[in-house]
Amino acid sequence: LIMGLKPNSALKASKTLFVLPSLFTFLLVGSQGENTAMDNVATERRAEESHRQDSANLLIFIMLLTLTILTIWLFKHRRFRFLHETGLAMIYGLLVGVILRFGVHVPRNMNNVTMNCSVNASPATLLVNVSGRFYEYTLKGEVSTVKGHDVQDDEMLRKVTFDPEVFFNILLPPIIFHAGYSLKRRHFFRNLGSILAYAFMGTVISSFVIGLVMYGCVTLMKAVGQLGGDFFFTDCLFFGAIVSATDPVTVLAIFNELKVDVDLYALMFGESVLNDAVAIVLSSSIGAYQPAGDNSHTFDATAMIKSFGVFLGVFSGSLALGVATGVMTALISFCFTKLRDFPLLETALFFLMSWSTFLLAEACEMTGVVAVLFCGMTQAHYTFNNLSPDSQDRTKQLFELLNFLAENFIFSYMGLTLFSFQSHVFNPLFIIGAFPLSLTAVPYQIAVFLGRAANIYPLSFLLNLGRKNKIGSNFQHVMMFAGLRGAMTFALSIRDTATYARQMMFSTTLLIVFFTVWVCGGGTTPMLSFMSIRVGVDSDQDSSVTVSDGTQHRNTKHESAWPFRIWYNFDNTYLKPLLTHSGPPLTATLPACCGPLARCLTSTQAYENEGHQHNDDSDELVLNDGNATMYGDVTVSTDASGTLTTNHKHLSASTMGITSEEALDQELAFGEHELVIRGTRLVLPMDDPPEPTVTLPPPPTSPPPFSDPFSDPFSDPFSDPRRNRL
Amino acid sequence: LIMGLKPNSALKASKTLFVLPSLFTFLLVGSQGENTAMDNVATERRAEESHRQDSANLLIFIMLLTLTILTIWLFKHRRFRFLHETGLAMIYGLLVGVILRFGVHVPRNMNNVTMNCSVNASPATLLVNVSGRFYEYTLKGEVSTVKGHDVQDDEMLRKVTFDPEVFFNILLPPIIFHAGYSLKRRHFFRNLGSILAYAFMGTVISSFVIGLVMYGCVTLMKAVGQLGGDFFFTDCLFFGAIVSATDPVTVLAIFNELKVDVDLYALMFGESVLNDAVAIVLSSSIGAYQPAGDNSHTFDATAMIKSFGVFLGVFSGSLALGVATGVMTALISFCFTKLRDFPLLETALFFLMSWSTFLLAEACEMTGVVAVLFCGMTQAHYTFNNLSPDSQDRTKQLFELLNFLAENFIFSYMGLTLFSFQSHVFNPLFIIGAFPLSLTAVPYQIAVFLGRAANIYPLSFLLNLGRKNKIGSNFQHVMMFAGLRGAMTFALSIRDTATYARQMMFSTTLLIVFFTVWVCGGGTTPMLSFMSIRVGVDSDQDSSVTVSDGTQHRNTKHESAWPFRIWYNFDNTYLKPLLTHSGPPLTATLPACCGPLARCLTSTQAYENEGHQHNDDSDELVLNDGNATMYGDVTVSTDASGTLTTNHKHLSASTMGITSEEALDQELAFGEHELVIRGTRLVLPMDDPPEPTVTLPPPPTSPPPFSDPFSDPFSDPFSDPRRNRL
Repeated sequence: LIMGLKPNSALKASKTLFVLPSLFTFLLVGSQGENTAMDNVATERRAEESHRQDSANLLIFIMLLTLTILTIWLFKHRRFRFLHETGLAMIYGLLVGVILRFGVHVPRNMNNVTMNCSVNASPATLLVNVSGRFYEYTLKGEVSTVKGHDVQDDEMLRKVTFDPEVFFNILLPPIIFHAGYSLKRRHFFRNLGSILAYAFMGTVISSFVIGLVMYGCVTLMKAVGQLGGDFFFTDCLFFGAIVSATDPVTVLAIFNELKVDVDLYALMFGESVLNDAVAIVLSSSIGAYQPAGDNSHTFDATAMIKSFGVFLGVFSGSLALGVATGVMTALISFCFTKLRDFPLLETALFFLMSWSTFLLAEACEMTGVVAVLFCGMTQAHYTFNNLSPDSQDRTKQLFELLNFLAENFIFSYMGLTLFSFQSHVFNPLFIIGAFPLSLTAVPYQIAVFLGRAANIYPLSFLLNLGRKNKIGSNFQHVMMFAGLRGAMTFALSIRDTATYARQMMFSTTLLIVFFTVWVCGGGTTPMLSFMSIRVGVDSDQDSSVTVSDGTQHRNTKHESAWPFRIWYNFDNTYLKPLLTHSGPPLTATLPACCGPLARCLTSTQAYENEGHQHNDDSDELVLNDGNATMYGDVTVSTDASGTLTTNHKHLSASTMGITSEEALDQELAFGEHELVIRGTRLVLPMDDPPEPTVTLPPPPTSPPPFSDPFSDPFSDPFSDPRRNRL
Repeated sequence: LIMGLKPNSALKASKTLFVLPSLFTFLLVGSQGENTAMDNVATERRAEESHRQDSANLLIFIMLLTLTILTIWLFKHRRFRFLHETGLAMIYGLLVGVILRFGVHVPRNMNNVTMNCSVNASPATLLVNVSGRFYEYTLKGEVSTVKGHDVQDDEMLRKVTFDPEVFFNILLPPIIFHAGYSLKRRHFFRNLGSILAYAFMGTVISSFVIGLVMYGCVTLMKAVGQLGGDFFFTDCLFFGAIVSATDPVTVLAIFNELKVDVDLYALMFGESVLNDAVAIVLSSSIGAYQPAGDNSHTFDATAMIKSFGVFLGVFSGSLALGVATGVMTALISFCFTKLRDFPLLETALFFLMSWSTFLLAEACEMTGVVAVLFCGMTQAHYTFNNLSPDSQDRTKQLFELLNFLAENFIFSYMGLTLFSFQSHVFNPLFIIGAFPLSLTAVPYQIAVFLGRAANIYPLSFLLNLGRKNKIGSNFQHVMMFAGLRGAMTFALSIRDTATYARQMMFSTTLLIVFFTVWVCGGGTTPMLSFMSIRVGVDSDQDSSVTVSDGTQHRNTKHESAWPFRIWYNFDNTYLKPLLTHSGPPLTATLPACCGPLARCLTSTQAYENEGHQHNDDSDELVLNDGNATMYGDVTVSTDASGTLTTNHKHLSASTMGITSEEALDQELAFGEHELVIRGTRLVLPMDDPPEPTVTLPPPPTSPPPFSDPFSDPFSDPFSDPRRNRL
């Protein structure tokens, strides 16, 4: 250490000051102020103190989650439905936030050294040279006004409000993956067209409507002089995009519990899952639309088209990446067959591959959320069949737990942020009263509701022109009402809070999330009964009943669009045999000319399966059943409360002798007969359907069911007896 | 923003420079250098770039882990034993470290602004005032010499070498918890005295011996003039403490696979688990021994005693905290009986409570590792019995997975750090050749081996004076040889690398870990056969056989010390009934005078259990069996490869009509009959003992087995038929 003053270096420093333009002040927190600078003991003490503080902060969240879990249990036990667990987590977070903000004061035990220096910007990384030793500092973010404020308290609050990257790298992936992994693919694909329309067109419409309404507000505010900073049209569009993402968690947990009409469920679930993906890509495209060096922020047609191109590129790229990783995992678990002997390795591999999809997409400047969603769907469709039964359970339970923890963490964090975040911009024009808080959000809420209405009603009208089973007006009202905003909206808005516009968006978003989760989430159950939506629907018994408006007789064959059927055939003939052990061997499905190729690509196990299908009907068959394992074969489905929904297959006598299209229909129906197991013997509901006693058809001896590679895969659905997997 | 120069503020700044003593230089990385300072778009770009970089870094580790898993599988498949998975993870980490260090260069695309300013220290937090807006910067650590070096590359390497807090808050707790949760309590308690001797006295002896040898080295180096900085006696002791922690992972995985002699296993496992706890408390006590303002670092008897007091206080405090949280979890799961209906909530609660133990201890300035270890043991002993069967599986599998991932992550990180860490101090006196690396560690290794020898041999001699089954000299040699250093040593040494002494320690520790894991870990299997240690021992068949040196007939009753027996009785009579559903009701075990108290504390389920015990012998009995569920009732034991070891209970006819001490012995023996299930039907080894056909004794009708609260709990071991849990 160079002690004492060096005149010429100080002179040099003061010269530098005249070269650089603007003012720069340092406030050194935690410096000892002694002459024995860089005392090692002090450094250690500081590290310990910081560690203690970090532990305490994490502990706050863990305690919050524990409290939430206990209360959730109480609610479930007492069958309260007006407040969902996510709403509860927010309330607890809010309370802790208030306590931290106003109740806790950190003693000022350290000296602050303030010094001036000048520099022109706040860089992301600062290298500080203390007498030849360099120390790296990283930018944590802006601190609110220091004048008169207690820096130590700010410090504490800032520590609790931790890095938004944690949301994107740690908390969001399991939630989105779980959504993809537990997607009920049968109902999803039956309503695919409508879901895509709502998710893509609807979200874009909603973003623009919200953006325009907000731009109107902002212009008004500018006129009145209430706006404290810049707020461009692109900011408004960005706000529209992030607020258009509906949450797939809260309402669907209620729907799941009430066993609401399956089509409504599928529409809501599919829309809100894809919604998130669309909103995240849309918001980043709007970011790309903003020209870098140009501060004009005006409307520009070329930039608009470029933005659309970015949107399409990023979305399809992420989708491809997610599917690719899923397929790769399937191939690994397909090739390394002996991996099945080690469920721990298998589970770890599955987990790591799924997470790496997210990171890979983010590192490639794609959208990790989209990638992980489609990765989840691919994993459920292919890889899941290759896993050992033990690993199947493990992966299901693992992602269920991660999803549950991440979700409740995000929601309690939201509550906490309302008070701990330091740069809230609650615009005074909009704030009618500080309490109740939800009132504050009403004007924003109007924009959001308008956007949602512009999404649902016109699209439903258009879709109903083409749909055989119409989306009833009661469905539309529920979809309108139950479009909650949740984790994704929050994560997108907290990601960047550097500018005035973004801070205002963040504060507004927070209020919108609170309002929708508490008011709309709480009101869903009354809304359902008010709109006379059917509840208590058993998802496999509705294939041939009429919907509540009493007009249609549904049949999957009319709703499965032809591109879906073509893909389905392709998947079943080529992809499933290539990627999983559950399909028929490729030698059976490929045309004869591809024989040698097919033989090298087919695993011995697939041949064994084929052998099995003729020779025995052991339990192995259920795991490796060939052609009969069709669309809905694997449903990894659990609700948030931990009740495990397991697949349950029937062999219905009426399946005999039906046409191929009816076979597909039946297949889709049977694949998802669900039985809720309560997880313990004691409370197993006794109204479960009794296990069907399966009378197996005599095993076919000749011809082998896959001898003709060109045969319609639906023509012989009985070659393999499907048995109750439970 | 205040553009342009303000003369008087600059003058003020230059005045400040004369007040403050030492030199301070800023090197601004990533500043745009334009006059449009704080451009919002630039801020967003920077955030995106940083996010992309973070994702890529995480991806590197995920890929490393994936690669490790696939290779582990290959090794397991081909039955390679000379290199353990942790050694493998290190090799992969090393390779990636080399590539990152020498192969990857980040393009210099940003302008660096260097400016001078002066301040006397590098504080933990820096507040930077850019024209009235405050930005917070946090200290990331020291950067190596910037002269001639590429700052961008350093930046990248520094990002890969992430915060050591991650080890302490995220990676270490699951490893330690899993060790406690999967402890084989029967063998552990049988050898408790010896284990405590090795863990406490042995570690202290070892620390002092290593510390003294190192101090000799350091004095020599100082004389030769090879020492580049301060290295005090306390630093030597600190080094001794962190290097004395042996690793419970690598060797024990090999022991587990080879089914090595159970007593050797118990000694090694118990020692290395408690070792970690002792070493961490010891090292922090040595930190407390260093006087804060005083730089003398000389020997001082009062400070020594104070340090010993700190050691005892912290250790017992952490132990109490861990046990308290475990008991609290048991109470919660005991009181909220209906929580069993929701396995997800139950698992989440269990997970959160266990993790919060760690954080709570750290926040209270106790030692989280010790707390979480004893919490794990308490959870396995009490809480596990209250969980639903589904949750029992889930928690086991969850912690197994977390342990596996954390462990492999740490080891591959170690490999990576050897090249990416920037302040390595490999002392030239000791470096004989740069390659092979292991040679470098030889002189340090000598100190470490001396320390280990001073631990094992004298203590074994003393212990053998009191033990009935002596610790054979072959056992001693194996314990000596197989004392690997692993995750804990690494985590302790990376925690603080601020000073020269600590940097040197870190580099040395890294080499020691490499050497021991590769050489000692790889040599364990040959060593075992060379020392003619019995392998392939079935852990429940050894109760009455002679050890390899052929002298002793072992009997648990002689090895279970009387404090243990007293505690065991107390636990079985009061604690188990109070905390779990598996004990007899308190009304049966408490003296008659406490009747009313006992009645309010006893759950209805315990009464039901009592009823069950008379009325039926359904499977429920196995879960809730009363008095008969004794010491070894629950063994949550899995090895690192994912082969699940499940409890397996016999009812041996010879159990009838034996004395209470023999009953305890039998109990301990039966409680841990283990059957290795390979996770799939196909590879289930067929040499398993056939399931014993249990002829149940007629259920006793009178007197009820718990009617006399003073009865010896061992006198009637047949009141409850134990049945095969599988």
